[in-house]
Amino acid sequence: MLDRRGLDRPNDDEPTTSKATTAMPTSLEILLNDLVMASRILAAEDIVDSFGHVSVRHPERSDRFFISRVRAAELVTREDIVELEMDCSPVRPTQERLFAERVLHAAVYRLRPDVKSVCHHHAPSVLPFCVSGVALVPVIHLGATMGAAVPFWDSRDEFGDTNLLVATEEQGLSMARSLGPYWTLLLRRHGATVAGRTIRECVFRSVYGARNAQVQWRAMQMGPLQPLTPGEACAAEDFNLTPIAVDRTWERWCHRTSQPA
Amino acid sequence: MLDRRGLDRPNDDEPTTSKATTAMPTSLEILLNDLVMASRILAAEDIVDSFGHVSVRHPERSDRFFISRVRAAELVTREDIVELEMDCSPVRPTQERLFAERVLHAAVYRLRPDVKSVCHHHAPSVLPFCVSGVALVPVIHLGATMGAAVPFWDSRDEFGDTNLLVATEEQGLSMARSLGPYWTLLLRRHGATVAGRTIRECVFRSVYGARNAQVQWRAMQMGPLQPLTPGEACAAEDFNLTPIAVDRTWERWCHRTSQPA
Amino acid sequence: MLDRRGLDRPNDDEPTTSKATTAMPTSLEILLNDLVMASRILAAEDIVDSFGHVSVRHPERSDRFFISRVRAAELVTREDIVELEMDCSPVRPTQERLFAERVLHAAVYRLRPDVKSVCHHHAPSVLPFCVSGVALVPVIHLGATMGAAVPFWDSRDEFGDTNLLVATEEQGLSMARSLGPYWTLLLRRHGATVAGRTIRECVFRSVYGARNAQVQWRAMQMGPLQPLTPGEACAAEDFNLTPIAVDRTWERWCHRTSQPA
Amino acid sequence: MLDRRGLDRPNDDEPTTSKATTAMPTSLEILLNDLVMASRILAAEDIVDSFGHVSVRHPERSDRFFISRVRAAELVTREDIVELEMDCSPVRPTQERLFAERVLHAAVYRLRPDVKSVCHHHAPSVLPFCVSGVALVPVIHLGATMGAAVPFWDSRDEFGDTNLLVATEEQGLSMARSLGPYWTLLLRRHGATVAGRTIRECVFRSVYGARNAQVQWRAMQMGPLQPLTPGEACAAEDFNLTPIAVDRTWERWCHRTSQPA
Repeated sequence: MLDRRGLDRPNDDEPTTSKATTAMPTSLEILLNDLVMASRILAAEDIVDSFGHVSVRHPERSDRFFISRVRAAELVTREDIVELEMDCSPVRPTQERLFAERVLHAAVYRLRPDVKSVCHHHAPSVLPFCVSGVALVPVIHLGATMGAAVPFWDSRDEFGDTNLLVATEEQGLSMARSLGPYWTLLLRRHGATVAGRTIRECVFRSVYGARNAQVQWRAMQMGPLQPLTPGEACAAEDFNLTPIAVDRTWERWCHRTSQPA
Repeated sequence: MLDRRGLDRPNDDEPTTSKATTAMPTSLEILLNDLVMASRILAAEDIVDSFGHVSVRHPERSDRFFISRVRAAELVTREDIVELEMDCSPVRPTQERLFAERVLHAAVYRLRPDVKSVCHHHAPSVLPFCVSGVALVPVIHLGATMGAAVPFWDSRDEFGDTNLLVATEEQGLSMARSLGPYWTLLLRRHGATVAGRTIRECVFRSVYGARNAQVQWRAMQMGPLQPLTPGEACAAEDFNLTPIAVDRTWERWCHRTSQPA
Repeated sequence: MLDRRGLDRPNDDEPTTSKATTAMPTSLEILLNDLVMASRILAAEDIVDSFGHVSVRHPERSDRFFISRVRAAELVTREDIVELEMDCSPVRPTQERLFAERVLHAAVYRLRPDVKSVCHHHAPSVLPFCVSGVALVPVIHLGATMGAAVPFWDSRDEFGDTNLLVATEEQGLSMARSLGPYWTLLLRRHGATVAGRTIRECVFRSVYGARNAQVQWRAMQMGPLQPLTPGEACAAEDFNLTPIAVDRTWERWCHRTSQPA
Repeated sequence: MLDRRGLDRPNDDEPTTSKATTAMPTSLEILLNDLVMASRILAAEDIVDSFGHVSVRHPERSDRFFISRVRAAELVTREDIVELEMDCSPVRPTQERLFAERVLHAAVYRLRPDVKSVCHHHAPSVLPFCVSGVALVPVIHLGATMGAAVPFWDSRDEFGDTNLLVATEEQGLSMARSLGPYWTLLLRRHGATVAGRTIRECVFRSVYGARNAQVQWRAMQMGPLQPLTPGEACAAEDFNLTPIAVDRTWERWCHRTSQPA
């Protein structure tokens, strides 16, 4: 049975549990449910493990965003989501621990008004590129959803020896400047930061960027790299980020992913 | 407990749910159940994910074929199957979205009367061959079921920069001409198209072609490739596509694969 | 809860289902239960898939052995086991299909009185060695259970182009001669044949031989191979085939493996 | 639902089963529950299989430690834990078989008063380094938790041809001397020994050391190795072993791991 929470529209055939009368979920509630599912999907698809996080910009207050408190992504529930200002302070006081790297999300939202969702991950197939410094390029059509280019950011360039986390506002802004107008950024010896115009797009780019990395690594053992042309990459990115492609995937991911209890 | 739907003959010890009297399923109903299971098996065996599809030619109307509407393969049910003309229009009007790449299936059926089933996939072990252009050859006896040769089709040759999908009749026919008399075709930077004389043969060729690709990739790291001789490949293909081999596998795949609810 | 069928001694706290009075299973019944579990364990550990089989010599009639009818290993039940003469004819007439490759088992039992169990498999980590012809050697202590050396058999040498199966008495005996006094044999472009002095030893050698192959393949990408010395291999084989090692593993494997319904 | 046994503090909302009155578990009981879960987590994370074990020093008697009897790690329960003196004799007489390699644990505790927990494993990603002798170095920030350096121990150097187990007091002490002041040691052709200041730290080092090995192996296929600087490694090790990182992971691991019945 397909989980209805995977669909865009509110469920009209499921009782709501919080009220006596049947109420439609607001668009914000739907968005935050998507954020919870995004977190769990990224874990189910091996993009994040105990580390890594995904956020979404507030749909009505572009100077705020939502992200979970410190918790492994596959365990996140609606109650773990906190609302943050762009200076990373919580809108409502909280005793919960917050990710040091929330500054990374804020920095991307600040420099890129077109970005509505950010994911930071250490997917195993992407890390060899972060270590070796070899460029990640689209080699299959679905991989083109990484975006037209995948730049690198090296914390050493501006900050020397660190623990490699993006933990200060300066580090966040430095990283976001390296992302520039693109959608996927590799952090040397650390992981990736991925942006999207929607949560689902951000998750799609994250998953298929990692799949592309796996194929590219294998293809590089076989001979010179023969990636997509810029024209192919642009057309494939456009097509594969349409709702017909993304929603089909989202339905399957929701089906495969455990729901909050 | 073995799922009886995996067997060739109708079930005479299971109640049918749609009628008051016990009716034997027609051969068409059995075939469409096989198509649903084929779709789910290909997902369970990691040949398809949210993308990729399998179809079957109508057994009595060779100018028609069956394929699911747009949906991830592991979720497909009998209700998702649509019947198409060879121009890819649905026999019965539908509001459902249809795969752009259904043209790929139609083109193979039009050029190859001997083909009764077609699968299109992006299996992770096959993609490095699609990217590198290295020839996929049978290196183990079960891999010989890919067929005597595995040609390539490159969308660039006739169509220049595209989004890499096979989305027009012309692209479908171009691809089908590259398949020629063979059974497995690699699409550069995209995936594979596999044909069979039955659904089960098509699924078998798809799965063991992907397994062969994995072994070949690993063996190529160890030294010069030592594939099967043409005589070995021909004998191994014949033997491994007999019912004794295919049905044993089909029984196991049905057992491992989730059934429609 | 540990499955008691994994233990050597009869269960005295489980009702038997075949008789009104509580009866101890005979040693033959225990052995055949082990054969069923061996088949399922080899599937659960990815040594066999829809193909591959394991057999055991009759404990009181050394001129007979037991093997399942044609069926994927993970589905085998007690009812699927048939008893065969050394000419591969069934002791009791049967309508069931039998493996063509049962001749392979018989040939090993005939040439090697010390062998009590035989496994034939196509484990994915072993196949690259079968294809490349690179020698499989013990590189870790548990891998030494493959035996002092792992020879090759190439069906081409005596039989030219075949479908690669070991399907005739002559092919079986040729293969068994290549095994010689050893315990693991690689069949070029096909798979492996493994022997043991008990079923559990045969399963252990099969599983850890495949694990060794995986490590060896990876280590060979990093530099010249540095295997165990003959003295180390001999001592490690002896130690790791003692009951203290094998039974610990068998308990875990039974726990992880689905039981017949 | 999160398993509360994954948390540091005693459960006050779960009935205890051993007494009529509700009693708080002692700190020792909590520690031994952690040891059981550590054993099962290491199995769930593919660090150990039927072989490999983890121990913890007695919190009040630094001359004693706890380890399971001979049993596959994923099956260990509280009843399997035995308490040993530093000469490896059991504090309470037992009929159970004990690991020959318990001497390895004792030797590390004897030479390293700062070590409170020891793990010995044969993780598949680490073994190629043990075979090839290539140095394992931190290439990602989480990998820095292996410690500042990862030395090798080769049983051949002092003991010549053995079965490769660390089975005598002399072998244990030789191995522990090779560990020196570090936290991770590779045993040539055998596996790894990992130490921690707590059980959770020991498990964390073991898991992310293995993850680092996987990334390093892949990165080495792509070009010259570009590891963390010593300054980065030191800062990353410190940060990633703080409770905020370790407890988040522990919560997830407990959630993913089967509990004793």
